[in-house]
Formats: sequence, C-alpha cells, structure tokens
Amino acid sequence: MFDRIAILGPGLLGASLLQAAKRRGLCRRTAVWSRRPETRLKCETQPWCDAVFADAGDAVAEADFVVACTPVDTIVPLFAQIAPRLAHGTLVTDVGSTKSLICRHARAALPEKVAFVGSHPMAGSEKTGLEHADPELFQGRACFVTPLVDTPAADVERVARFWKALGMEVATTTPEAHDEIAAHVSHLPHLFASAYCAYLSTRDPNWIHFAGPGLRDTTRVAAGDPALWKAIALQNREEILRALDGFQRELDQLRAALHNNQPFPLQHLLERGRDYRLRLRPLGEKPKEG
Amino acid sequence: MFDRIAILGPGLLGASLLQAAKRRGLCRRTAVWSRRPETRLKCETQPWCDAVFADAGDAVAEADFVVACTPVDTIVPLFAQIAPRLAHGTLVTDVGSTKSLICRHARAALPEKVAFVGSHPMAGSEKTGLEHADPELFQGRACFVTPLVDTPAADVERVARFWKALGMEVATTTPEAHDEIAAHVSHLPHLFASAYCAYLSTRDPNWIHFAGPGLRDTTRVAAGDPALWKAIALQNREEILRALDGFQRELDQLRAALHNNQPFPLQHLLERGRDYRLRLRPLGEKPKEG
Repeated sequence: MFDRIAILGPGLLGASLLQAAKRRGLCRRTAVWSRRPETRLKCETQPWCDAVFADAGDAVAEADFVVACTPVDTIVPLFAQIAPRLAHGTLVTDVGSTKSLICRHARAALPEKVAFVGSHPMAGSEKTGLEHADPELFQGRACFVTPLVDTPAADVERVARFWKALGMEVATTTPEAHDEIAAHVSHLPHLFASAYCAYLSTRDPNWIHFAGPGLRDTTRVAAGDPALWKAIALQNREEILRALDGFQRELDQLRAALHNNQPFPLQHLLERGRDYRLRLRPLGEKPKEG
Repeated sequence: MFDRIAILGPGLLGASLLQAAKRRGLCRRTAVWSRRPETRLKCETQPWCDAVFADAGDAVAEADFVVACTPVDTIVPLFAQIAPRLAHGTLVTDVGSTKSLICRHARAALPEKVAFVGSHPMAGSEKTGLEHADPELFQGRACFVTPLVDTPAADVERVARFWKALGMEVATTTPEAHDEIAAHVSHLPHLFASAYCAYLSTRDPNWIHFAGPGLRDTTRVAAGDPALWKAIALQNREEILRALDGFQRELDQLRAALHNNQPFPLQHLLERGRDYRLRLRPLGEKPKEG
C-alpha cells in the first residue's frame, strides 16, 4: 500500500499504528521521528521500526505516507518544519483529537504538491507511550477522516482505505462536524471526570477509601495526560463550551428536581439516561438483530 | 455465627449475601422473602436458599439475623410490617445506599427487643437480580456500619463482624457522615452519568457510533435501575445538593478557563484531577509501600 510510512511522535497511537501496518503488510519500510533521545533509543530496538531519525525532515524525506502523532498543539508547527523536505505526492495526515484548527492551518503550512487529509482515529487511552502499543488498538473503533471543501476525493479515499485496513470504521465529515461530535462524546466527558476528581481532592482525603467501581469507571479518563488534554480543550474550546452549556441545562433540571423533591422529573431524567446508555453497545459487539 | 439468616428482597445483593454466607459457613439455615411470585419460584431451586416465604413476617419469625435488601424507600415500611413477628434479640440490618432517614425511622419502626444497626456494603452494580449473584461480590469492598448514638456497641460489633467475614473492609460512621460520603463518591457521579446520557439523547442520534471506551466507562452506571436511583437520590437529596453546589464551583472555574482561553488554570485543574485519580487504586490492589 505504501513504500515508507513515517511516524512523527511514536507514542501509543504512533507505535500501535506501525505495529498494525507491519502486521497487515501495509508498508515496506517504516521511519520514526521523536523529539526525545530516550524515545529514539527505545525505537531502535523495536521490530516495527526500520529507521529512527533525530530530525523530522530526514524522517519524512523518503516517505510516501506521513502521520503526525504528536500533541494537537505541535502538529501545525511540525508540518511547517517538514514542509521543505516532503516529496511530491506524499500523503500527509495527523491523528489529532481536534480537527478544525489543525486542518485549516495544516493545509496552509504544507506545500501544494503534497496531499493532506486530517484524521482522528478514536483509539486513545489514558495510557500513553510506546510501551502500551498494541497492533489491534484500532480494531472495530471509529475513525474520522475530515477533508476540507477543496480536498481531492482521491486523497480522502487513500487515507480512509488505510484506516479501514487497520480494522477501523471510517466516517467522513467536515472538520467542524468532527469537533462538535468529539466535544460531546469525548472532550466534555473527559473534562467532567477531571473536574470531578479535582473537586473530590478538595474534600476529606479519607473518602477515597470508599470509592467503588462506579467512581473508578466514571473518572478513569481523568488519569490522562494534563498537557495533552489542555491542548485539546483549548483547540476545541468553542464546541466544548457549547456542549457544556447544553449539559448545564440538563444539570439545572436535575438540581431543580432534587431541590423541589420531585420524583417524576427525576425518574424521567434517569430513564432517558438509561435508555441512551443501553443503546451504547460494548466495543466489538454487533448491533442486535430485529 | 447465625442460626437462620432471613433476606428480604433476594436481588443481586441479597442473593450474593446468602451465597457468601453459605460458602463461609456463617449460618445454618437461610430464609428468603420476595414480593414477586416469579422471584420466589426462582429462589426455590437455588442451593443457597433453604426456605422461601410469600409473607415477610413468616420469613423473619425464626431468624436471628434479618437483612433488608429492598429498594431504600421500602425498607422502613417493611420493618413496620415485620415488627410484630421478630423474636427477642434478633439482629436486624439493611443494605440501603442511604442511611440517615432509614436508620432514624427503622429504629422507631422496630420493637425495642430487637437490635438494629444500619449497613451499606458498597458492592452494587448496574446489573441487578439474583441471576448476577456472586458469593465474592463483597470481597475487598468497603462497607459502612452506621449506628445511632444510643446503639449498643455489642450490636455494632456483631454486624461489623458479619461483613468482615464476607471479606469487606468495615468503616463505622454516623448515618449523616455516611450520607455525605456516599453523595460524593457514589450518588452524584451516578446522577451525572445519567444526566449526561439524558443530554446526549437530545442531540444527533448518529453520534452514538463515535462513542469510545472513555464515554462507555464514564457513563456505565447510567444503565442502573431508574426507580432504585430515584429513591436513593430523593432520600439523600440534601447531601447530593450540597455536593452538587461544591462541584458546580469547580465546573464554573473550568468554564471560565475555557471561555477566557487560559492554559494555566486549565492545566492546573487537569493536574489536580489526575493526581486524585491516580490515588484511586484498582479494587483489590494493596496500597504501595513507602
């Protein structure tokens, strides 16, 4: 499918991507760039890594597919940096969790002769780093591919085909539609979990011993990297604020039902919540027939 | 330890409790009362169930330990109903997720000659019903025992010993302290998950296909029984409202940081959240030494 895939930032996603691509025979060679010497050293001993570079331009120079897997606020500067070294016809994408800002600026930062289509494979984890890489990380997960209005359909198709080959279910949307959806199904729930844990940290420290599986699950994502999530939250702040305002209205109704001791509105809210949650099928499970 | 344990309401907790008590040799005989004929029929074929009753008074008449495992709003009426049938010296407890209201009214509903101490074994699940019963459900979990000021210490000790024998870590607190803690570590996170799912159900139904493991985990508890949780929320509404107000201040700070595009307050909130979440050790894991 590709001759050389170059990964910029071999963290959980980047390393899993190369493992998956190697396992599925989607490329002949792989190249990796990392800013950190210790990560480059680790990569040199990995079977899924054919070449390691200290310079991002060197890593992409011979690549026909470049995937930026660095934090969302570093992707566009990195594109600007590698722009002069990209070969004619190279396909470039990124795996950033926000898309409007990145896609708009990436297209401007990259030369006309390369193809760019943004992606967001929804396969993250609160675990980070290539130590947790897994070639099946993408299997059965959703992936956004987010062309701009003038992105050639053939380029979109090439990127979508790659993610499908990793086992992903690909949805093509505008970057703006992606950001609205991601704010609702990922960014806002993450920020809630963080804010809730931050709130609990202001209360009696002994209460932590009474945390059951419910609190553990509802707050699991709060263990994620604060710097990564700060960048995501700021890049998608407008959609997150809109979602927050929408949810705040639901929360105000909950508060009123409790305050006024009203069983019926409370039960109605709980029923609507349960009905929605029951439609969220477990990962990998097929929808029920009939 | 006991001659006959009587369970009122053999759902997930009640059935698991009898399985655990049988396995650990904590009683000679078991008795079960259920309001529903179909549940009684199921119980009759269960090895952990020695006698099934259609009348709650009949179920407790020969018991020396009675555990009410019915929804929180039915416990006190049930105690009033069985009161005339309880033998002198019988030990009575309940497993309700709220304690102030239940403990105060239970003591008044029960005769002087029986011992009552409220309990809250934190071992629930969004799964309900005796089909999901598990004799190891209680292992390593926290259990509150909540005496009133005039509850004899020997009675508290007997109830605590029982839960410890099931593998639980028992904490003795006032019913009021329990309700404040439970509001924070269980009730409010549950209501958030429900409210968030209720909110998502008002948006584009197709977004559900983009739900990843993060949303699945943060909302898992919203699949719980609306009637049960409505009763819990209303019985503990004052503490839940107080916790909600405290959390709302944290949420307002998050909103301000996003609205004003401020990286430092945002990162600080995310770091406080992560630090707290990392202190929540997985169930069954011992605290790290040193």
